[in-house]
Amino acid sequence: MKLVTTPIEIQAYAHDYRAKGATIGLVPTMGWFHEGHLSLMRKAGTMTDKLIVSLFVNPMQFGPSEDLDKYPYDLDRDCRLAEEVGVDLLYAAEKAVMYPEEFATTVHVKGLTSGLCGGSRPGHFDGVTTVVAKLFNQTLPHIAVFGEKDFQQLAVIRKMVTDLDFPVEIIAHPIVREESGLAMSSRNTYLQDDEMAAALSLSKGIALAKDLVKSDRNVTVKLVIDGVSRNILSHRECEIDYVEIVDKTTLRPCTQITTASVLVLAVKINKRIRLIDNSLMIEG
Amino acid sequence: MKLVTTPIEIQAYAHDYRAKGATIGLVPTMGWFHEGHLSLMRKAGTMTDKLIVSLFVNPMQFGPSEDLDKYPYDLDRDCRLAEEVGVDLLYAAEKAVMYPEEFATTVHVKGLTSGLCGGSRPGHFDGVTTVVAKLFNQTLPHIAVFGEKDFQQLAVIRKMVTDLDFPVEIIAHPIVREESGLAMSSRNTYLQDDEMAAALSLSKGIALAKDLVKSDRNVTVKLVIDGVSRNILSHRECEIDYVEIVDKTTLRPCTQITTASVLVLAVKINKRIRLIDNSLMIEG
Repeated sequence: MKLVTTPIEIQAYAHDYRAKGATIGLVPTMGWFHEGHLSLMRKAGTMTDKLIVSLFVNPMQFGPSEDLDKYPYDLDRDCRLAEEVGVDLLYAAEKAVMYPEEFATTVHVKGLTSGLCGGSRPGHFDGVTTVVAKLFNQTLPHIAVFGEKDFQQLAVIRKMVTDLDFPVEIIAHPIVREESGLAMSSRNTYLQDDEMAAALSLSKGIALAKDLVKSDRNVTVKLVIDGVSRNILSHRECEIDYVEIVDKTTLRPCTQITTASVLVLAVKINKRIRLIDNSLMIEG
Repeated sequence: MKLVTTPIEIQAYAHDYRAKGATIGLVPTMGWFHEGHLSLMRKAGTMTDKLIVSLFVNPMQFGPSEDLDKYPYDLDRDCRLAEEVGVDLLYAAEKAVMYPEEFATTVHVKGLTSGLCGGSRPGHFDGVTTVVAKLFNQTLPHIAVFGEKDFQQLAVIRKMVTDLDFPVEIIAHPIVREESGLAMSSRNTYLQDDEMAAALSLSKGIALAKDLVKSDRNVTVKLVIDGVSRNILSHRECEIDYVEIVDKTTLRPCTQITTASVLVLAVKINKRIRLIDNSLMIEG
Protein backbone atom coordinates (compact mmCIF):
# COMPACT_ATOMS: atom_id res chain seq x y z
CA MET A 1 0.00 0.00 0.00
CA LYS A 2 1.19 3.48 -0.87
CA LEU A 3 0.65 6.49 1.36
CA VAL A 4 0.31 9.82 -0.43
CA THR A 5 -0.29 13.23 1.09
CA THR A 6 -0.78 15.81 -1.67
CA PRO A 7 -3.44 16.48 -4.34
CA ILE A 8 -0.74 16.57 -7.03
CA GLU A 9 0.60 13.11 -6.14
CA ILE A 10 -2.80 11.47 -5.88
CA GLN A 11 -3.99 13.00 -9.15
CA ALA A 12 -0.84 11.73 -10.87
CA TYR A 13 -1.53 8.20 -9.59
CA ALA A 14 -5.17 8.45 -10.67
CA HIS A 15 -4.22 9.62 -14.18
CA ASP A 16 -1.71 6.80 -14.40
CA TYR A 17 -4.27 4.18 -13.31
CA ARG A 18 -6.76 5.50 -15.84
CA ALA A 19 -4.17 5.61 -18.63
CA LYS A 20 -3.56 1.91 -17.99
CA GLY A 21 -7.28 1.19 -18.23
CA ALA A 22 -7.70 0.41 -14.52
CA THR A 23 -10.95 1.22 -12.75
CA ILE A 24 -10.70 3.26 -9.56
CA GLY A 25 -12.81 2.98 -6.42
CA LEU A 26 -12.80 5.71 -3.79
CA VAL A 27 -13.84 5.50 -0.15
CA PRO A 28 -13.74 8.99 1.43
CA THR A 29 -13.24 8.86 5.20
CA MET A 30 -12.21 10.96 8.17
CA GLY A 31 -10.11 8.08 9.51
CA TRP A 32 -10.14 6.20 12.83
CA PHE A 33 -11.29 3.19 10.89
CA HIS A 34 -13.86 0.77 12.27
CA GLU A 35 -15.60 -2.20 10.71
CA GLY A 36 -18.01 0.20 8.98
CA HIS A 37 -15.18 1.84 7.04
CA LEU A 38 -13.50 -1.49 6.36
CA SER A 39 -16.67 -2.94 4.87
CA LEU A 40 -16.95 0.08 2.54
CA MET A 41 -13.36 -0.54 1.48
CA ARG A 42 -13.97 -4.24 0.85
CA LYS A 43 -17.02 -3.41 -1.24
CA ALA A 44 -15.14 -0.82 -3.33
CA GLY A 45 -12.22 -3.26 -3.65
CA THR A 46 -14.38 -6.01 -5.16
CA MET A 47 -15.86 -3.57 -7.69
CA THR A 48 -12.68 -1.92 -9.05
CA ASP A 49 -9.04 -2.57 -9.96
CA LYS A 50 -7.51 0.12 -7.76
CA LEU A 51 -8.78 1.11 -4.34
CA ILE A 52 -8.12 4.61 -3.03
CA VAL A 53 -9.12 5.55 0.53
CA SER A 54 -8.94 9.20 1.49
CA LEU A 55 -8.39 10.13 5.11
CA PHE A 56 -9.07 13.76 5.85
CA VAL A 57 -10.66 15.28 8.93
CA ASN A 58 -12.30 18.04 6.93
CA PRO A 59 -12.41 21.27 8.95
CA MET A 60 -14.91 22.81 6.53
CA GLN A 61 -17.66 20.43 7.67
CA PHE A 62 -17.24 21.13 11.40
CA GLY A 63 -18.99 24.03 13.15
CA PRO A 64 -17.02 26.31 15.48
CA SER A 65 -18.36 24.58 18.62
CA GLU A 66 -17.98 21.03 17.28
CA ASP A 67 -15.45 18.27 17.92
CA LEU A 68 -12.86 19.00 15.20
CA ASP A 69 -9.99 19.34 17.67
CA LYS A 70 -10.69 16.12 19.53
CA TYR A 71 -11.73 13.99 16.55
CA PRO A 72 -9.80 10.72 16.96
CA TYR A 73 -6.75 10.34 14.70
CA ASP A 74 -4.05 7.67 14.45
CA LEU A 75 -2.47 7.39 11.02
CA ASP A 76 -0.28 4.36 11.84
CA ARG A 77 -3.27 2.41 13.10
CA ASP A 78 -5.34 3.38 10.04
CA CYS A 79 -2.48 2.50 7.65
CA ARG A 80 -2.29 -0.98 9.15
CA LEU A 81 -6.05 -1.54 8.91
CA ALA A 82 -6.24 -0.21 5.36
CA GLU A 83 -3.36 -2.39 4.23
CA GLU A 84 -5.07 -5.45 5.70
CA VAL A 85 -8.19 -4.94 3.58
CA GLY A 86 -6.17 -4.43 0.39
CA VAL A 87 -6.22 -0.65 -0.08
CA ASP A 88 -3.83 0.37 -2.89
CA LEU A 89 -3.46 4.03 -1.98
CA LEU A 90 -4.15 5.69 1.33
CA TYR A 91 -4.48 9.41 0.66
CA ALA A 92 -3.96 11.45 3.83
CA ALA A 93 -3.79 15.11 2.83
CA GLU A 94 -2.85 17.95 5.14
CA LYS A 95 -5.28 20.80 5.73
CA ALA A 96 -2.81 23.29 4.23
CA VAL A 97 -2.77 21.55 0.85
CA MET A 98 -6.52 20.93 0.80
CA TYR A 99 -7.43 24.48 1.80
CA PRO A 100 -4.62 26.95 1.08
CA GLU A 101 -5.12 30.33 2.70
CA GLU A 102 -6.80 31.95 -0.29
CA PHE A 103 -9.29 29.08 -0.78
CA ALA A 104 -12.60 30.60 -1.92
CA THR A 105 -14.87 28.03 -3.56
CA THR A 106 -17.97 26.32 -2.17
CA VAL A 107 -20.30 23.71 -3.62
CA HIS A 108 -23.80 24.15 -2.21
CA VAL A 109 -26.82 21.87 -2.57
CA LYS A 110 -30.00 23.63 -1.56
CA GLY A 111 -33.18 21.99 -0.26
CA LEU A 112 -31.86 18.61 0.87
CA THR A 113 -29.36 20.32 3.18
CA SER A 114 -31.76 22.59 5.05
CA GLY A 115 -33.26 20.18 7.61
CA LEU A 116 -32.04 17.36 9.89
CA CYS A 117 -28.25 17.53 10.33
CA GLY A 118 -28.17 20.59 8.07
CA GLY A 119 -30.51 22.37 10.46
CA SER A 120 -28.42 21.75 13.55
CA ARG A 121 -25.04 21.95 11.82
CA PRO A 122 -25.18 25.09 9.60
CA GLY A 123 -22.65 24.94 6.77
CA HIS A 124 -21.88 21.27 7.45
CA PHE A 125 -23.06 20.01 4.08
CA ASP A 126 -21.31 22.79 2.15
CA GLY A 127 -18.15 21.44 3.75
CA VAL A 128 -19.07 17.90 2.75
CA THR A 129 -19.98 18.64 -0.87
CA THR A 130 -16.98 20.92 -1.38
CA VAL A 131 -14.48 18.38 -0.07
CA VAL A 132 -16.11 15.50 -1.93
CA ALA A 133 -15.99 17.51 -5.18
CA LYS A 134 -12.28 18.08 -4.52
CA LEU A 135 -11.68 14.41 -3.71
CA PHE A 136 -13.47 13.31 -6.89
CA ASN A 137 -11.31 15.63 -9.00
CA GLN A 138 -8.16 14.54 -7.19
CA THR A 139 -8.75 10.77 -7.33
CA LEU A 140 -10.83 10.47 -10.54
CA PRO A 141 -12.81 7.46 -9.31
CA HIS A 142 -15.23 5.38 -11.37
CA ILE A 143 -17.18 4.58 -8.21
CA ALA A 144 -17.28 6.05 -4.71
CA VAL A 145 -18.72 4.15 -1.76
CA PHE A 146 -20.50 5.92 1.11
CA GLY A 147 -22.14 4.49 4.20
CA GLU A 148 -25.87 4.74 4.74
CA LYS A 149 -25.28 5.76 8.35
CA ASP A 150 -24.79 9.31 7.08
CA PHE A 151 -28.09 9.09 5.32
CA GLN A 152 -28.59 12.77 4.55
CA GLN A 153 -24.96 13.07 3.41
CA LEU A 154 -25.53 10.25 0.93
CA ALA A 155 -28.65 11.96 -0.47
CA VAL A 156 -26.83 15.30 -0.74
CA ILE A 157 -23.81 13.78 -2.48
CA ARG A 158 -26.02 11.89 -4.94
CA LYS A 159 -27.74 15.19 -5.73
CA MET A 160 -24.45 17.01 -6.27
CA VAL A 161 -23.20 14.23 -8.54
CA THR A 162 -26.39 14.30 -10.61
CA ASP A 163 -26.59 18.10 -10.82
CA LEU A 164 -22.90 18.68 -11.65
CA ASP A 165 -22.64 15.56 -13.85
CA PHE A 166 -19.65 14.11 -12.01
CA PRO A 167 -18.60 10.95 -13.92
CA VAL A 168 -18.72 8.92 -10.71
CA GLU A 169 -21.16 6.20 -9.66
CA ILE A 170 -22.23 6.53 -6.03
CA ILE A 171 -22.58 3.23 -4.19
CA ALA A 172 -24.38 3.03 -0.85
CA HIS A 173 -23.37 0.54 1.83
CA PRO A 174 -25.70 -0.52 4.68
CA ILE A 175 -25.00 0.53 8.26
CA VAL A 176 -22.63 -1.79 10.10
CA ARG A 177 -23.61 -2.33 13.73
CA GLU A 178 -21.98 -3.60 16.91
CA GLU A 179 -23.51 -6.76 18.31
CA SER A 180 -25.38 -4.50 20.71
CA GLY A 181 -27.09 -2.78 17.78
CA LEU A 182 -25.08 0.44 18.09
CA ALA A 183 -24.30 1.88 14.65
CA MET A 184 -20.54 1.94 14.18
CA SER A 185 -19.05 5.44 14.29
CA SER A 186 -15.65 6.91 14.99
CA ARG A 187 -17.43 9.06 17.56
CA ASN A 188 -18.37 5.96 19.60
CA THR A 189 -14.84 6.16 20.94
CA TYR A 190 -15.99 9.15 23.03
CA LEU A 191 -18.58 7.00 24.87
CA GLN A 192 -17.89 5.98 28.45
CA ASP A 193 -19.24 2.73 29.85
CA ASP A 194 -22.05 4.41 31.74
CA GLU A 195 -23.20 6.17 28.56
CA MET A 196 -23.71 2.99 26.56
CA ALA A 197 -27.36 2.49 27.54
CA ALA A 198 -28.15 6.01 26.40
CA ALA A 199 -26.24 5.45 23.13
CA LEU A 200 -28.23 2.27 22.49
CA SER A 201 -31.49 4.21 22.71
CA LEU A 202 -31.07 5.13 19.03
CA SER A 203 -30.94 1.57 17.67
CA LYS A 204 -33.56 0.51 20.24
CA GLY A 205 -35.74 3.36 19.02
CA ILE A 206 -35.44 1.99 15.49
CA ALA A 207 -36.40 -1.51 16.68
CA LEU A 208 -39.39 -0.10 18.54
CA ALA A 209 -40.51 1.91 15.51
CA LYS A 210 -40.30 -1.16 13.27
CA ASP A 211 -42.31 -3.19 15.77
CA LEU A 212 -44.99 -0.51 15.87
CA VAL A 213 -45.21 -0.50 12.06
CA LYS A 214 -45.18 -4.29 11.89
CA SER A 215 -48.05 -4.61 14.34
CA ASP A 216 -50.10 -1.87 12.66
CA ARG A 217 -49.24 -0.94 9.08
CA ASN A 218 -51.48 2.15 9.46
CA VAL A 219 -49.84 3.48 12.61
CA THR A 220 -49.46 7.26 12.40
CA VAL A 221 -46.11 8.99 11.95
CA LYS A 222 -46.80 10.99 15.11
CA LEU A 223 -47.38 7.90 17.22
CA VAL A 224 -44.12 6.31 16.08
CA ILE A 225 -42.08 9.48 16.61
CA ASP A 226 -43.62 10.03 20.05
CA GLY A 227 -42.89 6.44 21.08
CA VAL A 228 -39.28 6.59 19.91
CA SER A 229 -38.70 10.02 21.46
CA ARG A 230 -40.14 8.96 24.85
CA ASN A 231 -37.88 5.95 24.78
CA ILE A 232 -34.79 8.06 24.10
CA LEU A 233 -35.70 10.70 26.67
CA SER A 234 -36.12 8.03 29.36
CA HIS A 235 -32.30 8.25 29.49
CA ARG A 236 -31.45 11.45 31.31
CA GLU A 237 -28.16 11.68 29.37
CA CYS A 238 -30.06 12.11 26.10
CA GLU A 239 -31.14 15.27 24.36
CA ILE A 240 -32.94 14.88 21.03
CA ASP A 241 -31.59 16.84 18.09
CA TYR A 242 -34.21 15.34 15.77
CA VAL A 243 -36.42 12.29 15.44
CA GLU A 244 -38.20 12.33 12.09
CA ILE A 245 -39.69 10.04 9.49
CA VAL A 246 -38.76 11.29 6.04
CA ASP A 247 -38.93 10.22 2.42
CA LYS A 248 -35.70 8.45 1.50
CA THR A 249 -35.09 10.59 -1.61
CA THR A 250 -36.54 14.03 -0.92
CA LEU A 251 -35.86 13.91 2.86
CA ARG A 252 -39.24 15.64 3.33
CA PRO A 253 -41.34 14.56 6.34
CA CYS A 254 -43.69 11.66 5.55
CA THR A 255 -47.39 12.08 6.26
CA GLN A 256 -47.80 8.31 6.36
CA ILE A 257 -45.48 5.36 6.56
CA THR A 258 -44.60 3.70 3.26
CA THR A 259 -41.75 1.60 1.87
CA ALA A 260 -39.94 4.91 1.16
CA SER A 261 -40.10 6.06 4.80
CA VAL A 262 -36.89 6.35 6.79
CA LEU A 263 -36.69 7.00 10.51
CA VAL A 264 -33.77 9.38 11.10
CA LEU A 265 -32.39 10.15 14.54
CA ALA A 266 -29.80 12.49 16.01
CA VAL A 267 -29.25 12.44 19.75
CA LYS A 268 -26.76 14.21 21.93
CA ILE A 269 -25.38 12.26 24.89
CA ASN A 270 -24.39 14.36 27.91
CA LYS A 271 -24.10 17.39 25.62
CA ARG A 272 -20.80 15.90 24.44
CA ILE A 273 -21.40 13.19 21.91
CA ARG A 274 -23.73 13.58 18.96
CA LEU A 275 -24.83 10.24 17.51
CA ILE A 276 -26.97 9.59 14.43
CA ASP A 277 -28.75 6.52 13.15
CA ASN A 278 -31.47 5.68 10.64
CA SER A 279 -33.45 2.86 9.11
CA LEU A 280 -36.10 2.20 6.52
CA MET A 281 -39.37 1.66 8.39
CA ILE A 282 -40.33 -1.28 6.18
CA GLU A 283 -37.35 -3.31 4.97
CA GLY A 284 -37.74 -4.46 1.36
CA MET B 1 -18.50 17.12 -37.23
CA LYS B 2 -20.99 15.53 -34.86
CA LEU B 3 -23.79 17.46 -33.15
CA VAL B 4 -24.84 16.13 -29.74
CA THR B 5 -27.49 17.53 -27.45
CA THR B 6 -27.46 15.63 -24.15
CA PRO B 7 -25.03 15.27 -21.23
CA ILE B 8 -25.21 11.47 -21.49
CA GLU B 9 -24.18 11.46 -25.17
CA ILE B 10 -21.34 13.93 -24.75
CA GLN B 11 -19.98 12.14 -21.68
CA ALA B 12 -20.03 8.85 -23.62
CA TYR B 13 -18.03 10.43 -26.44
CA ALA B 14 -15.59 11.96 -23.94
CA HIS B 15 -15.07 8.63 -22.16
CA ASP B 16 -14.53 6.97 -25.52
CA TYR B 17 -11.96 9.57 -26.61
CA ARG B 18 -10.10 9.19 -23.33
CA ALA B 19 -10.19 5.38 -23.49
CA LYS B 20 -8.47 5.65 -26.87
CA GLY B 21 -5.79 7.91 -25.39
CA ALA B 22 -6.95 11.04 -27.23
CA THR B 23 -6.58 14.45 -25.61
CA ILE B 24 -9.69 16.62 -25.46
CA GLY B 25 -9.95 20.38 -25.80
CA LEU B 26 -13.10 22.25 -24.78
CA VAL B 27 -14.25 25.71 -25.82
CA PRO B 28 -17.37 26.69 -23.86
CA THR B 29 -19.53 29.24 -25.69
CA MET B 30 -23.00 30.73 -25.80
CA GLY B 31 -23.00 30.52 -29.62
CA TRP B 32 -23.46 33.18 -32.34
CA PHE B 33 -19.86 32.58 -33.25
CA HIS B 34 -17.58 35.41 -34.30
CA GLU B 35 -13.87 35.48 -35.04
CA GLY B 36 -13.18 35.60 -31.28
CA HIS B 37 -14.83 32.23 -30.74
CA LEU B 38 -13.27 30.77 -33.87
CA SER B 39 -9.78 31.75 -32.76
CA LEU B 40 -10.37 30.02 -29.39
CA MET B 41 -11.43 26.92 -31.32
CA ARG B 42 -8.38 27.01 -33.56
CA LYS B 43 -6.12 27.34 -30.53
CA ALA B 44 -7.78 24.42 -28.70
CA GLY B 45 -7.66 22.41 -31.93
CA THR B 46 -3.90 22.78 -32.32
CA MET B 47 -3.35 21.70 -28.71
CA THR B 48 -5.50 18.53 -28.57
CA ASP B 49 -6.65 15.52 -30.58
CA LYS B 50 -10.37 16.08 -30.19
CA LEU B 51 -12.07 19.45 -30.12
CA ILE B 52 -15.39 19.86 -28.33
CA VAL B 53 -17.27 23.16 -28.49
CA SER B 54 -20.24 23.61 -26.20
CA LEU B 55 -23.02 25.99 -27.20
CA PHE B 56 -25.37 26.80 -24.37
CA VAL B 57 -27.06 30.10 -23.61
CA ASN B 58 -26.89 29.50 -19.88
CA PRO B 59 -29.97 30.98 -18.17
CA MET B 60 -28.31 30.68 -14.75
CA GLN B 61 -25.82 33.43 -15.59
CA PHE B 62 -28.43 35.97 -16.73
CA GLY B 63 -30.23 38.30 -14.32
CA PRO B 64 -34.03 38.70 -14.53
CA SER B 65 -33.78 42.03 -16.40
CA GLU B 66 -30.99 40.94 -18.76
CA ASP B 67 -30.95 39.90 -22.42
CA LEU B 68 -31.46 36.12 -22.13
CA ASP B 69 -34.56 36.14 -24.33
CA LYS B 70 -33.05 38.17 -27.15
CA TYR B 71 -29.54 36.67 -27.04
CA PRO B 72 -28.71 35.88 -30.71
CA TYR B 73 -29.01 32.21 -31.70
CA ASP B 74 -28.66 30.39 -35.02
CA LEU B 75 -27.60 26.76 -34.68
CA ASP B 76 -27.30 26.12 -38.44
CA ARG B 77 -24.99 29.09 -38.87
CA ASP B 78 -22.88 28.07 -35.86
CA CYS B 79 -22.68 24.44 -37.06
CA ARG B 80 -21.32 25.62 -40.39
CA LEU B 81 -18.72 27.89 -38.79
CA ALA B 82 -17.63 25.24 -36.27
CA GLU B 83 -17.26 22.63 -38.97
CA GLU B 84 -15.07 24.99 -40.99
CA VAL B 85 -12.55 25.38 -38.16
CA GLY B 86 -12.38 21.63 -37.56
CA VAL B 87 -14.56 21.12 -34.47
CA ASP B 88 -15.11 17.39 -33.82
CA LEU B 89 -18.16 17.66 -31.59
CA LEU B 90 -20.56 20.56 -31.27
CA TYR B 91 -22.44 20.09 -28.02
CA ALA B 92 -25.68 22.08 -27.99
CA ALA B 93 -27.63 21.03 -24.90
CA GLU B 94 -31.20 22.04 -24.13
CA LYS B 95 -31.99 23.93 -20.93
CA ALA B 96 -34.23 21.07 -19.74
CA VAL B 97 -31.37 18.54 -19.74
CA MET B 98 -28.84 20.98 -18.25
CA TYR B 99 -31.16 22.16 -15.47
CA PRO B 100 -33.94 19.67 -14.78
CA GLU B 101 -36.72 21.05 -12.58
CA GLU B 102 -35.28 19.79 -9.30
CA PHE B 103 -31.76 21.16 -10.00
CA ALA B 104 -30.32 22.38 -6.69
CA THR B 105 -26.51 22.72 -6.81
CA THR B 106 -24.40 25.87 -7.07
CA VAL B 107 -20.65 26.40 -7.27
CA HIS B 108 -19.70 29.71 -5.69
CA VAL B 109 -16.34 31.51 -5.71
CA LYS B 110 -16.23 34.25 -3.14
CA GLY B 111 -14.04 37.36 -3.25
CA LEU B 112 -13.18 37.53 -6.96
CA THR B 113 -16.88 37.58 -7.85
CA SER B 114 -17.98 40.46 -5.63
CA GLY B 115 -16.90 43.49 -7.68
CA LEU B 116 -16.91 44.57 -11.34
CA CYS B 117 -19.39 42.44 -13.36
CA GLY B 118 -20.26 40.53 -10.18
CA GLY B 119 -21.32 43.78 -8.56
CA SER B 120 -23.68 44.81 -11.34
CA ARG B 121 -24.82 41.29 -12.25
CA PRO B 122 -25.60 39.57 -8.91
CA GLY B 123 -25.48 35.78 -9.22
CA HIS B 124 -23.89 35.97 -12.68
CA PHE B 125 -20.68 34.21 -11.70
CA ASP B 126 -22.47 31.49 -9.74
CA GLY B 127 -24.18 30.72 -13.03
CA VAL B 128 -20.85 30.72 -14.84
CA THR B 129 -18.96 28.51 -12.38
CA THR B 130 -21.85 26.09 -12.01
CA VAL B 131 -22.29 25.58 -15.75
CA VAL B 132 -18.53 25.35 -16.35
CA ALA B 133 -18.23 22.70 -13.61
CA LYS B 134 -21.03 20.79 -15.36
CA LEU B 135 -19.39 21.17 -18.78
CA PHE B 136 -16.04 19.97 -17.44
CA ASN B 137 -17.66 16.87 -15.96
CA GLN B 138 -19.66 16.25 -19.12
CA THR B 139 -16.82 16.70 -21.63
CA LEU B 140 -13.79 15.61 -19.53
CA PRO B 141 -11.36 17.97 -21.27
CA HIS B 142 -7.60 18.08 -20.80
CA ILE B 143 -7.62 21.78 -21.63
CA ALA B 144 -10.33 24.43 -21.85
CA VAL B 145 -9.81 27.70 -23.70
CA PHE B 146 -11.43 30.95 -22.56
CA GLY B 147 -11.19 34.44 -24.03
CA GLU B 148 -9.53 37.24 -22.11
CA LYS B 149 -12.38 39.56 -23.06
CA ASP B 150 -14.30 38.11 -20.13
CA PHE B 151 -11.40 38.91 -17.88
CA GLN B 152 -13.12 38.48 -14.52
CA GLN B 153 -14.75 35.26 -15.72
CA LEU B 154 -11.34 33.86 -16.60
CA ALA B 155 -9.97 34.74 -13.13
CA VAL B 156 -13.01 33.20 -11.43
CA ILE B 157 -12.82 29.99 -13.46
CA ARG B 158 -9.10 29.64 -12.79
CA LYS B 159 -9.87 30.00 -9.08
CA MET B 160 -12.61 27.37 -9.19
CA VAL B 161 -10.34 24.97 -11.06
CA THR B 162 -7.53 25.46 -8.54
CA ASP B 163 -9.77 25.25 -5.47
CA LEU B 164 -11.78 22.21 -6.60
CA ASP B 165 -8.76 20.51 -8.24
CA PHE B 166 -10.46 20.05 -11.62
CA PRO B 167 -8.02 18.06 -13.81
CA VAL B 168 -8.28 20.67 -16.56
CA GLU B 169 -5.70 23.18 -17.76
CA ILE B 170 -7.17 26.61 -18.39
CA ILE B 171 -5.79 28.40 -21.44
CA ALA B 172 -6.38 32.11 -21.98
CA HIS B 173 -6.70 33.61 -25.45
CA PRO B 174 -6.19 37.33 -26.17
CA ILE B 175 -9.09 39.55 -27.14
CA VAL B 176 -9.87 39.53 -30.85
CA ARG B 177 -10.85 42.95 -32.18
CA GLU B 178 -12.57 44.37 -35.24
CA GLU B 179 -10.38 46.57 -37.40
CA SER B 180 -12.03 49.52 -35.66
CA GLY B 181 -10.67 48.30 -32.32
CA LEU B 182 -14.06 47.09 -31.03
CA ALA B 183 -13.64 43.90 -28.99
CA MET B 184 -15.55 41.11 -30.69
CA SER B 185 -18.71 40.08 -28.87
CA SER B 186 -21.94 38.35 -29.78
CA ARG B 187 -23.67 41.36 -28.25
CA ASN B 188 -22.16 43.65 -30.91
CA THR B 189 -24.97 42.38 -33.11
CA TYR B 190 -27.34 44.60 -31.07
CA LEU B 191 -25.44 47.75 -32.10
CA GLN B 192 -27.01 50.09 -34.64
CA ASP B 193 -24.86 52.17 -36.96
CA ASP B 194 -25.36 55.37 -34.97
CA GLU B 195 -24.22 53.60 -31.79
CA MET B 196 -20.84 52.54 -33.16
CA ALA B 197 -18.97 55.67 -32.04
CA ALA B 198 -20.22 55.15 -28.49
CA ALA B 199 -19.24 51.45 -28.62
CA LEU B 200 -15.73 52.40 -29.75
CA SER B 201 -15.29 54.60 -26.67
CA LEU B 202 -14.22 51.46 -24.75
CA SER B 203 -11.27 50.53 -26.97
CA LYS B 204 -10.44 54.22 -27.42
CA GLY B 205 -10.45 54.56 -23.65
CA ILE B 206 -7.91 51.74 -23.47
CA ALA B 207 -5.71 53.43 -26.08
CA LEU B 208 -5.92 56.72 -24.20
CA ALA B 209 -5.02 55.04 -20.91
CA LYS B 210 -2.01 53.34 -22.45
CA ASP B 211 -0.85 56.63 -23.93
CA LEU B 212 -1.13 58.33 -20.54
CA VAL B 213 0.95 55.57 -18.92
CA LYS B 214 3.47 55.60 -21.74
CA SER B 215 4.03 59.33 -21.45
CA ASP B 216 4.24 59.24 -17.65
CA ARG B 217 5.00 55.91 -15.98
CA ASN B 218 4.05 57.49 -12.64
CA VAL B 219 0.66 58.78 -13.71
CA THR B 220 -1.92 58.21 -10.96
CA VAL B 221 -4.67 55.61 -11.22
CA LYS B 222 -7.22 58.37 -10.60
CA LEU B 223 -5.97 60.50 -13.47
CA VAL B 224 -6.16 57.59 -15.91
CA ILE B 225 -9.64 56.54 -14.77
CA ASP B 226 -10.91 60.12 -14.92
CA GLY B 227 -9.51 60.60 -18.41
CA VAL B 228 -11.02 57.37 -19.72
CA SER B 229 -14.37 58.04 -18.02
CA ARG B 230 -14.63 61.57 -19.44
CA ASN B 231 -13.91 60.22 -22.88
CA ILE B 232 -16.64 57.60 -22.59
CA LEU B 233 -19.18 60.01 -21.13
CA SER B 234 -18.60 62.47 -24.00
CA HIS B 235 -20.94 60.09 -25.87
CA ARG B 236 -24.44 60.80 -24.60
CA GLU B 237 -25.43 57.16 -25.35
CA CYS B 238 -22.94 55.89 -22.75
CA GLU B 239 -23.50 55.10 -19.12
CA ILE B 240 -20.54 53.76 -17.15
CA ASP B 241 -21.05 50.55 -15.20
CA TYR B 242 -17.42 50.54 -14.08
CA VAL B 243 -14.02 51.86 -15.12
CA GLU B 244 -11.34 50.45 -12.85
CA ILE B 245 -7.68 49.53 -12.79
CA VAL B 246 -7.24 46.24 -10.96
CA ASP B 247 -4.57 43.64 -10.25
CA LYS B 248 -4.77 40.93 -12.93
CA THR B 249 -4.90 38.08 -10.38
CA THR B 250 -6.67 39.40 -7.30
CA LEU B 251 -8.92 41.84 -9.22
CA ARG B 252 -8.40 44.29 -6.36
CA PRO B 253 -8.07 48.00 -7.25
CA CYS B 254 -4.48 49.05 -7.93
CA THR B 255 -3.04 51.96 -5.98
CA GLN B 256 -0.41 52.48 -8.64
CA ILE B 257 0.09 51.27 -12.17
CA THR B 258 2.39 48.27 -12.59
CA THR B 259 2.88 45.46 -15.12
CA ALA B 260 0.10 43.61 -13.27
CA SER B 261 -2.46 46.40 -13.73
CA VAL B 262 -5.45 45.85 -15.97
CA LEU B 263 -7.92 48.51 -17.05
CA VAL B 264 -11.38 46.97 -17.00
CA LEU B 265 -14.43 48.66 -18.47
CA ALA B 266 -18.16 48.00 -18.62
CA VAL B 267 -20.36 50.50 -20.41
CA LYS B 268 -24.04 50.48 -21.23
CA ILE B 269 -25.05 51.94 -24.59
CA ASN B 270 -28.52 53.49 -24.71
CA LYS B 271 -29.47 51.43 -21.67
CA ARG B 272 -29.77 48.44 -24.03
CA ILE B 273 -26.35 47.04 -24.77
CA ARG B 274 -23.78 46.28 -22.10
CA LEU B 275 -20.25 46.04 -23.49
CA ILE B 276 -17.05 45.11 -21.68
CA ASP B 277 -13.39 45.43 -22.56
CA ASN B 278 -10.03 45.29 -20.80
CA SER B 279 -6.31 45.55 -21.32
CA LEU B 280 -3.07 45.33 -19.43
CA MET B 281 -1.83 48.88 -18.88
CA ILE B 282 1.75 47.95 -19.73
CA GLU B 283 2.01 45.20 -22.33
CA GLY B 284 4.80 42.77 -21.54
